[in-house]
Amino acid sequence: MNHADPIQRLILAFSRLPSVGEKTAARFTFYLLNRDQEVTEELSNALNALHSTVQFCSTCANLSAQDPCRFCASDKRDSSQICVVEDVSALMAIEKTGEYRGLYHVLHGVISPFEGIGPDDLKIAALLRRLQGHAKADSLSDMEVILATNPSVDGEATSLYLSELLKPFGVQVSRIASGVPMGSNLQYADQLSIAQALVRRRAL
Amino acid sequence: MNHADPIQRLILAFSRLPSVGEKTAARFTFYLLNRDQEVTEELSNALNALHSTVQFCSTCANLSAQDPCRFCASDKRDSSQICVVEDVSALMAIEKTGEYRGLYHVLHGVISPFEGIGPDDLKIAALLRRLQGHAKADSLSDMEVILATNPSVDGEATSLYLSELLKPFGVQVSRIASGVPMGSNLQYADQLSIAQALVRRRAL
Repeated sequence: MNHADPIQRLILAFSRLPSVGEKTAARFTFYLLNRDQEVTEELSNALNALHSTVQFCSTCANLSAQDPCRFCASDKRDSSQICVVEDVSALMAIEKTGEYRGLYHVLHGVISPFEGIGPDDLKIAALLRRLQGHAKADSLSDMEVILATNPSVDGEATSLYLSELLKPFGVQVSRIASGVPMGSNLQYADQLSIAQALVRRRAL
Repeated sequence: MNHADPIQRLILAFSRLPSVGEKTAARFTFYLLNRDQEVTEELSNALNALHSTVQFCSTCANLSAQDPCRFCASDKRDSSQICVVEDVSALMAIEKTGEYRGLYHVLHGVISPFEGIGPDDLKIAALLRRLQGHAKADSLSDMEVILATNPSVDGEATSLYLSELLKPFGVQVSRIASGVPMGSNLQYADQLSIAQALVRRRAL
């Protein structure tokens, strides 16, 4: 590889992205070479804008160009619900369903002893401060905190930890449902999801 | 989608790359957000350098920051061999084998009546000029032009067209071999490749 060569340089830069190997990076590069320069420029400018304008929302720790972020700044969101997510991609996935109109809180990770990530490495203190701030204005008993960490080992453990921490505030604490995915086939579902679907079955 | 948002803007810019959907584009974006700013900057700078520094080599039409490109400028390459390829990614694939020490000529496409691409849309005239230039210095009968367009319908047709065009120059014209891929299993090989492997069989 000749790194002074602009083509090789871009291939190398692309191949640092997750799950992008050298062949895919080369495909991206030659695609851009064959397109108008504008496509390349827009990608370059968007990359430049990323770190310079994105910051944590001081309320919910969402990543945004504004502080407060568009959820915390909106008067159309239900401020009696806070949905706690692991990261911004989970927030976006929930937002895309159109089912949720409350606020968010982004932890930026989960407690993971294996990876050496403890509660202090996450935005948990900010969540507690947020509830303490609320206590003065509204009644906390009307509030619901929905724990929407991933249904993984670390996500479940983090949810359990948070629920112990949040209950003393007198808020309602709930956990998103786990079970077999909608539209799936039991034959191909994993055993844990089927087991959850049975244990958490609801009366009809 | 809120396009003023820097995260959404980068996701949109990434999703214009081939085979990158919104989820992959989001994964790239959040990956970069979680890495040092340098990784993002290097990708942005490499993108900026692409169109501003890359040009056609005036000899072989390879894309390069230098003219002549590193192959045409090298005195270690065998100038009696010219390997004709469809595009720079094919050149790179051949170069990576380490088996070829001659020069290249990049067509930047193949003749494709279906897509309205004729001989004049490719770097064929430059290849003929190159041989005419050669005629003054060396003996053309010692030269070999290896046609390495892809073994597709258009690639085969382009090879055939080029061989008719090149033979009057008195150069040797050859075509890369087609057959079953090395290390493959006949059970899974396509019928055309097996047929080629039988027709092009060699005596041992």
